[in-house]
Amino acid sequence: MTVPKNHPRYESLMRRERLAEMVGRGLVTPTGLVSQGRGEAFDYMMGERTLPASLEAERAAAAHLLLAENPVVCVNGNAAALDAPNLIELAKLTGSKIEVNIFHRTEERMSLLIDYLESLGAENVLGREPDARIPGLGSDRALCTREGIFSSDAILVPIEDGDRAEALVAMGKTVISIDLNPLSRTSRVATVPISDEISRATANMIGFAREMRGDEGAARSAIESYSAERSRQSVVGEIIGFLSRYV
Amino acid sequence: MTVPKNHPRYESLMRRERLAEMVGRGLVTPTGLVSQGRGEAFDYMMGERTLPASLEAERAAAAHLLLAENPVVCVNGNAAALDAPNLIELAKLTGSKIEVNIFHRTEERMSLLIDYLESLGAENVLGREPDARIPGLGSDRALCTREGIFSSDAILVPIEDGDRAEALVAMGKTVISIDLNPLSRTSRVATVPISDEISRATANMIGFAREMRGDEGAARSAIESYSAERSRQSVVGEIIGFLSRYV
Repeated sequence: MTVPKNHPRYESLMRRERLAEMVGRGLVTPTGLVSQGRGEAFDYMMGERTLPASLEAERAAAAHLLLAENPVVCVNGNAAALDAPNLIELAKLTGSKIEVNIFHRTEERMSLLIDYLESLGAENVLGREPDARIPGLGSDRALCTREGIFSSDAILVPIEDGDRAEALVAMGKTVISIDLNPLSRTSRVATVPISDEISRATANMIGFAREMRGDEGAARSAIESYSAERSRQSVVGEIIGFLSRYV
Repeated sequence: MTVPKNHPRYESLMRRERLAEMVGRGLVTPTGLVSQGRGEAFDYMMGERTLPASLEAERAAAAHLLLAENPVVCVNGNAAALDAPNLIELAKLTGSKIEVNIFHRTEERMSLLIDYLESLGAENVLGREPDARIPGLGSDRALCTREGIFSSDAILVPIEDGDRAEALVAMGKTVISIDLNPLSRTSRVATVPISDEISRATANMIGFAREMRGDEGAARSAIESYSAERSRQSVVGEIIGFLSRYV
């Protein structure tokens, strides 16, 4: 499949091709591509850039991971395919564990994803041997490790399903979501909802983590000055502004 | 893959599963799933229902097909997977030819799609042996038949790429698009842009075609009272209204 270079949506189409390739390798499920498309639509309406409100959320998110006792970066198929190197670096910088957790769980795909992350330098990736369950979730989606997700106090969940985000919030965790749709259930329940494309979001978080590392005061103030509700409303307002130019 | 029945997005997730299955059968490309996701995001912001402006567009679209000399219903992988029975019925009711035309053309996928449509009762489906090109398009995307797309005066293009929609408009055709994104290039250049989910759109068009068949006056007045610009603006306005409830 070749996309002509002069196609106006060349970059977006190339990201699709990359994910499609990852479906072929078994890391991403076909339905993960549909989720990607949903995200693309919102990214498009945000001008395919990090909005000021999202940047503030990314700063607060980095601060939460730095200050947590047991922070965890959760990785699913789409997150791994789109952004493994940044997620690994962010985890290292913030002392977070990495746990693979997928919606459509098969042992084979768990292994593929963990091997993939470890091939890129991630260490001790959790998830292969779950020994705990997230309360309130049915079936395999509840499976997690006691050492990682179960006992985490702050958790980054990129591209997360609404049920799981809600269940994690109900456990009393600080939940940081990366979800381009600011209206999704995940974005509405998260402690820190980030509406930004995953690679842009993690690149910014890496920058903030470097800046605030060892400066607890800066991290505390990033958290205190942040409001999830105000941030989410600002993002929705920007989308309305974008659409209004077409009316 | 099982989606729990109590999941709040059960229907939408089931549509994804259906498309994913069609990828497995070779009718839909993986990147077609991403397009589906983009559409879903807009459908969600329109309340997953036919907006009044879209219903008007569907009426005008049915009228155009009824009054055309050589109307053509264009079918690609996503359209076939999501809505083959309605597209076939609409073509029969309006005397339209059906031509398969895909973005990522392979002879194998062309055959699969044509066989699939014929297995559902479509007759003389065109596209297997292209003998003409749409001017201004590079590569295989230009291929079409002289009998069908090339000489058509009105053409229905569900889920169409912007380049092709523009090229068809440039040929002087009446182009009816079905594209949930009212801001897309396809929606902006089409003679009659319909922003609605494909199955809802074609079901309505079938109803209108039955109603106006043999009543040229009604068809002419549906076309005359319709304005693409006004319709598109109304759809964008509805989306803004939806988002405003979250601010």
